Amino acid sequence: MAEPSSAPTMKDVAREAGVALGTVSKVMNGIPVGESYRVRVEKAVAKLNYRVNSYAKGLKTNKTYTVAVMVPNLVSPFFAKLVNALNRQLALRKYRMLLYATDYDPAQEQEYVIMAEQQKVDGIICLSYNPELKVSENVPMVSIDRYFGAQIPCVSSDNYGGGRIAAEKLYENGCRNLAFMRIGSRLTNEPNKRKDGFISACEALGVSFTLKIVDDGTPYAAFEEFLREHTHAGVPDFDGIFCVTDSLAYQTVRSLRAMGVRVPEDVQIIGFDGARLFGDQDLFCSTIVQPVEEIAETCVDMILEKALSKAPSLMCLPVEYAYGGTTLK
Amino acid sequence: MAEPSSAPTMKDVAREAGVALGTVSKVMNGIPVGESYRVRVEKAVAKLNYRVNSYAKGLKTNKTYTVAVMVPNLVSPFFAKLVNALNRQLALRKYRMLLYATDYDPAQEQEYVIMAEQQKVDGIICLSYNPELKVSENVPMVSIDRYFGAQIPCVSSDNYGGGRIAAEKLYENGCRNLAFMRIGSRLTNEPNKRKDGFISACEALGVSFTLKIVDDGTPYAAFEEFLREHTHAGVPDFDGIFCVTDSLAYQTVRSLRAMGVRVPEDVQIIGFDGARLFGDQDLFCSTIVQPVEEIAETCVDMILEKALSKAPSLMCLPVEYAYGGTTLK
Repeated sequence: MAEPSSAPTMKDVAREAGVALGTVSKVMNGIPVGESYRVRVEKAVAKLNYRVNSYAKGLKTNKTYTVAVMVPNLVSPFFAKLVNALNRQLALRKYRMLLYATDYDPAQEQEYVIMAEQQKVDGIICLSYNPELKVSENVPMVSIDRYFGAQIPCVSSDNYGGGRIAAEKLYENGCRNLAFMRIGSRLTNEPNKRKDGFISACEALGVSFTLKIVDDGTPYAAFEEFLREHTHAGVPDFDGIFCVTDSLAYQTVRSLRAMGVRVPEDVQIIGFDGARLFGDQDLFCSTIVQPVEEIAETCVDMILEKALSKAPSLMCLPVEYAYGGTTLK
Repeated sequence: MAEPSSAPTMKDVAREAGVALGTVSKVMNGIPVGESYRVRVEKAVAKLNYRVNSYAKGLKTNKTYTVAVMVPNLVSPFFAKLVNALNRQLALRKYRMLLYATDYDPAQEQEYVIMAEQQKVDGIICLSYNPELKVSENVPMVSIDRYFGAQIPCVSSDNYGGGRIAAEKLYENGCRNLAFMRIGSRLTNEPNKRKDGFISACEALGVSFTLKIVDDGTPYAAFEEFLREHTHAGVPDFDGIFCVTDSLAYQTVRSLRAMGVRVPEDVQIIGFDGARLFGDQDLFCSTIVQPVEEIAETCVDMILEKALSKAPSLMCLPVEYAYGGTTLK
């Protein structure tokens, strides 16, 4: 590695080219100068292998061309796909991404927000379920899935609509005794609306339904017990189950099959997310697909336009149903 | 968002505290000053909500506390797990991560290396299969899986050892007619050694084996055809197959079952990677598990110690076999 002191500065370029510092600055910023000057500067830049110091540039323009992205982790397929899409959307606009994976640690999430603020990024795109998170007023912020209040725009899937679609699809496939299973935060957050949409559609269709809702951190065994309680001599009380995530749907299918219940012949299962095996192969289950690319594009557009004060406080993007083998169609 | 001009500077803090600029600087950098001075500075910092300008700091110290990480994408479970682990390892050392997902685009990979260099990061951790990639001499770099030559240290799993373990495990489980299936780059890269290790163990054990090796970009159908050619009246020529990735193993299991071949009763399958469904649930198949956390920790240690010139040019970290349902044990 070259010693820091050996990196050429704009002054070195000016000396090498035999021009004024201002001329080098103009050339580097694409401002027209006399042709001979431009050529001399470019030759000097090439000879010295001069690179614009983005830190000095950041000081002057107060733009960093950097957006901080905060998510719980990258190993959950939905988060991985989301960060992948955000990275692509930022790169298309010549922005770079500072990534913070928080592992759901509230203290770390708070620290990251402060760090992002200190590092004077151009914005923060944040997916956090931390109820205590204090957000900054000095850096534009867009939230995914979690509603912080009108001052922070929130982008999410149309979770309510997705819940409705799940109930309607199960009904259309012949199911008449539905269940909804959910594990998650009690906090006001968009994914909670999957339940509301599901209930609303069940009521509209006049279909009976049962809810099994547990708090974050509850072991999966709670669902297994629920399924066992509702299965008599191998026959389940339900013929259709909507699970709040694909991950829960996958576990549910496995539990039911282990109990001798056939999926989808006896019970049809719909998940939520639209994750794919290995990122690009089969769906894990029949599911409501989140529009991950559109969520990413919307977040990046909003952060970079900086018209956040005029932005809607909540934008719900349309979801769709996809068949993945755990329903009849 | 506050106007850039409204952000307080160190000078504002000095004025507010009624102390010299150097005193503020000492307090901010943890250098002892008289108690009454320290208290005055801290009160002024709190009152003005002053934050250290990391850009100004970057200019002075020539340290950015930032490492660039370049990977093809985040949706492949192995890459997702790797970036997740790198992020954690960097955060533990109070470093931040600039993330570049390249989608295997050679032009973009080259651009990202140049960008990372210009942004004067403290190092680059790079996973690229681009044969033409020109790496910088001005920024410390560590490569994962891809050997660029002795000047760039490479960290990877012990792929050779993993290939040996796969052959030995299949043999131990009673297999006597083995196959190896691989899709990948022709380029010198560490995952290629999975084949070499496999062959070496087969030869040592005196077991017959068949290779099916295709270049990147070949459709999966080539493997399906290979499997069909080697299956007669529902009986395959092989009783054990080692696949170069879990993804290929997953597809292979599906193809064989569709042809009426039982897995693992008729054919046992071992993949490579150790990916888990949804990041934390079941393995996709019996597999050779890559030590992702150790790879990440080693890369970060090497980049930050900056003792790269003394580093080994290749470090292969131990892998292990894990049962995942596609072998007898």
